[in-house]
Amino acid sequence: MNETWLENIKWTEDGLVPAIAQETGSGKVLMMAWMNREALRLTVEEGRAIYWSRSRNKLWRKGEESGNVQILNDIRLDCDNDVILLEVEQVGGIACHTGRHNCFYKQLKDSKWTEVEEVIKEPSALYGK
Amino acid sequence: MNETWLENIKWTEDGLVPAIAQETGSGKVLMMAWMNREALRLTVEEGRAIYWSRSRNKLWRKGEESGNVQILNDIRLDCDNDVILLEVEQVGGIACHTGRHNCFYKQLKDSKWTEVEEVIKEPSALYGK
Repeated sequence: MNETWLENIKWTEDGLVPAIAQETGSGKVLMMAWMNREALRLTVEEGRAIYWSRSRNKLWRKGEESGNVQILNDIRLDCDNDVILLEVEQVGGIACHTGRHNCFYKQLKDSKWTEVEEVIKEPSALYGK
Repeated sequence: MNETWLENIKWTEDGLVPAIAQETGSGKVLMMAWMNREALRLTVEEGRAIYWSRSRNKLWRKGEESGNVQILNDIRLDCDNDVILLEVEQVGGIACHTGRHNCFYKQLKDSKWTEVEEVIKEPSALYGK
């Protein structure tokens, strides 16, 4: 596989690039996470979002525990070559580990972050813990 | 002004947070840039997107040269408190310094980044240079 496209990316000093996941159809922004070179290569190869977990320091196959995988429909790179935009189908309709549809559920209202999106499934049910 | 909401954010070691700008109505993701504490405070105070330019090392009042400002309609914070999502009206319909509607105009096709969005206005016309 030709990997020039991976070299076109301006990786951070840590070898990462931010990746925004947007839902096909609804256009909702689901989350932003990070990818290293291997994660991005595998995302394209496998047709599903695979991130790099900075906290666990390992590949994070989105949905590996919950089943809520993200199926890749499109992938874009920005003008500066340092941000990725994924268009994905969110299996299960839940992108956030809190059990919500997406991670951007805190809205600024009167100088306070207010939760405005419902929990669809409790995390205990999502992760079977 | 109560600034607790600024303290809720998990800033990077450099004191920054990534901010995604999404267009009201179309739902298009326009760009991703960075904000420091002052940029975010001013964004909310002035009701328009103000970023921190890491290359120029100063506040970047989006549209200050081109007139293509971003009017703030909504602001969200993600589950981990380390990514901001802005919903904005893009004045002039051009978010990208290349003169395109948005910055994510390179699509991965057959292992190559291919430009798929048209230039609406040449940069020379945008910046009068």
